[in-house]
Amino acid sequence: MLVVQKYGGTSVRDVQRIQNVAKRAIEYKGRGMDVIVVVSAMSGETDRLLNLAHEIAKFPDEREVDVLISTGEQVTSALLAITLREMGHKAVSLLADQIRIISDSSYGTARIASIEDAKIRSELKEGSIIVVPGFQGVDDRGNITTLGRGGSDTTAVALAAALRADLCEIYTDVDGVYTTDPNICERARRLDKISYEEMLEMASLGAKVLQIRSVELAQKYNVPILVKSSLVEGKGTLVCKEDMIMMEKVVISGITYNKNETKITINKVPDKPGVASKIFSALSAANIVVDMIVQNVSHENYNDITFTVVKADGKKAFKITEEIGTEIGAKVAMDEDMAKVSIVGLGMRSHSGVASRMFTLLANEGINIELISTSEIKISCVIESKYGELAVRALHKGFDLDAGDIAEES
Amino acid sequence: MLVVQKYGGTSVRDVQRIQNVAKRAIEYKGRGMDVIVVVSAMSGETDRLLNLAHEIAKFPDEREVDVLISTGEQVTSALLAITLREMGHKAVSLLADQIRIISDSSYGTARIASIEDAKIRSELKEGSIIVVPGFQGVDDRGNITTLGRGGSDTTAVALAAALRADLCEIYTDVDGVYTTDPNICERARRLDKISYEEMLEMASLGAKVLQIRSVELAQKYNVPILVKSSLVEGKGTLVCKEDMIMMEKVVISGITYNKNETKITINKVPDKPGVASKIFSALSAANIVVDMIVQNVSHENYNDITFTVVKADGKKAFKITEEIGTEIGAKVAMDEDMAKVSIVGLGMRSHSGVASRMFTLLANEGINIELISTSEIKISCVIESKYGELAVRALHKGFDLDAGDIAEES
Repeated sequence: MLVVQKYGGTSVRDVQRIQNVAKRAIEYKGRGMDVIVVVSAMSGETDRLLNLAHEIAKFPDEREVDVLISTGEQVTSALLAITLREMGHKAVSLLADQIRIISDSSYGTARIASIEDAKIRSELKEGSIIVVPGFQGVDDRGNITTLGRGGSDTTAVALAAALRADLCEIYTDVDGVYTTDPNICERARRLDKISYEEMLEMASLGAKVLQIRSVELAQKYNVPILVKSSLVEGKGTLVCKEDMIMMEKVVISGITYNKNETKITINKVPDKPGVASKIFSALSAANIVVDMIVQNVSHENYNDITFTVVKADGKKAFKITEEIGTEIGAKVAMDEDMAKVSIVGLGMRSHSGVASRMFTLLANEGINIELISTSEIKISCVIESKYGELAVRALHKGFDLDAGDIAEES
Repeated sequence: MLVVQKYGGTSVRDVQRIQNVAKRAIEYKGRGMDVIVVVSAMSGETDRLLNLAHEIAKFPDEREVDVLISTGEQVTSALLAITLREMGHKAVSLLADQIRIISDSSYGTARIASIEDAKIRSELKEGSIIVVPGFQGVDDRGNITTLGRGGSDTTAVALAAALRADLCEIYTDVDGVYTTDPNICERARRLDKISYEEMLEMASLGAKVLQIRSVELAQKYNVPILVKSSLVEGKGTLVCKEDMIMMEKVVISGITYNKNETKITINKVPDKPGVASKIFSALSAANIVVDMIVQNVSHENYNDITFTVVKADGKKAFKITEEIGTEIGAKVAMDEDMAKVSIVGLGMRSHSGVASRMFTLLANEGINIELISTSEIKISCVIESKYGELAVRALHKGFDLDAGDIAEES
């Protein structure tokens, strides 16, 4: 059995935590498994290096930034290999160019193209625990690349896929994926299992546990991911294929919640081609990321277009939209202090009435829904910000997610 | 014209100093030269990394220590390349494995076996300033190696040799090689030129300007080295072949001085094979480095053997030697608080009476010589520590080295 373990920055932030990582790897090895450990930079290290670069240049050369920041993971790799050897176990660190983790040449946001398995396999055969710096690759001309923030997750999943590992464990500072934010809803429950699809919707909505690209990659190559805490013992959450999950059990897997949204509405937009394009091109040119977009026919030959942006961009987005509104004779309104609450679950594909149940639960609390948007496995409602936490708790309870409501899987 | 410039840790210790390094490289480039810059780790960085390793293990795995500490130079290289690009100049960092600086596999003390010049030449042709992390190599299996403390000097000289550079400039925190320690003798004078041979004797005696291996390498491939300060303007000291130096000018090039020596004497050692071997094997087994060894016939069938060690090892060395002395019936005595003062110069090969002049100069000051040892271009005397500084000043003046005594070369 081959397991890939990945540890984030807080899990390797000092020598003591690195020793804990080493102990776990050795324990797995002792149980007869082959182990590959992927490590991030010690927490704070990547920022320290980036700050140095930004002391020099506002836009430092991207190739050289990758040469710079890839050292963070290299340091952790060496320290972990030293620790494993000090504990009496064979271990070797292998950098991206030593393995040959080949990526494209998009410095800072490189994508892995291929991974050679020969070097790792031969070292595994020797009985070594393999330590790999996450986040880095090498292009076909030998330049160092990095995979972007959170890229260590991607390294781990890609290695697991390339070596056909049985499991990819992602160790982090939370003990798994929760039904919702425990800070808002104290009855939030750790999920034993979640499908790739649900995880993708959860991740993009703010459940910041796994890098979204790594989940896509895991889904593509069918790599089971176990998200666990490196600090406390626990079963964690298995992210896996839909058919491995007992679907009947739950309709909704989780509730996610985004605060600080601003809603902008353009009323009476003339119904002719190019208007929406004009608005969103202007916003994009100003580097404003638009979250939800909803369009509805309100009057004959007129549309209402509503969209949301993060509150920090609200006023700027409003100004841009208003200018275009004046041009085309449409009225623009802004509501700051909005929140988006979403329910995510594969179950809604086979269960009818999920949406109406959501709306009823919110109405029962006197919460007005300002905007609705749906995808196949997600329904999002924009509401007034002050009702956000109340909405999360009401939906969590209403969809039977509260701890104790259903038996935990074993 | 091709110049290799090397900067030590204090010369790149912060962003501002790195910017100064970049300015100088660009200035050279502007004068039509091709430039390769070799950099050390920012000062303190190598120690910071080594301390982490030693928190984990008393004897950390050597392969992994090299993976660890090679990141220090990599960071500086990336930062310098970023700086050069920010200043509008083409620049690229090339790591040991990207150039292919091939070394043997002696981690921590690797020796360079070969350097491929193709990659550097093609980047130079593109007009780039090349930035190379010093101190590191890669063995023929792709493992990262380091060349030992001060190895960046060796990298610079080796690159200069491989690429047939016209000059190798070593920038450091002193402005050249001095006739003696300016802290002891205020009339110490910067040398304009010094031969490889003299530099080797000076370096091993404590004039810690250049790593001794880099001087040997420069001598072998006839690479002229210019030692300069990165902080103040100045002509520096050129280390070059003997025939480039006006030999007639000076007999002695410099005076070196080692404090804190302990002298141990074994009297009446039976004159039979194996006794010296027994003593020095025992000291070596105890990791004690012996500096000078002098043996003299004192009585028929008996020898006196005297040696010196650093004072910190004195008591331990005495104890070991005394045990052996008791075994063989010889008496062992120790003098702590000794100093060694040496004169170095090619001139003594062609000028007679140099030794006697040295002894007279010391006698004139009432300084008793306890031990004498000579090589082709060096004479060392061990004296009481308290006379050390006085001896240096007397010899410096007596051999006409005081500033103003001879015209500086242009």
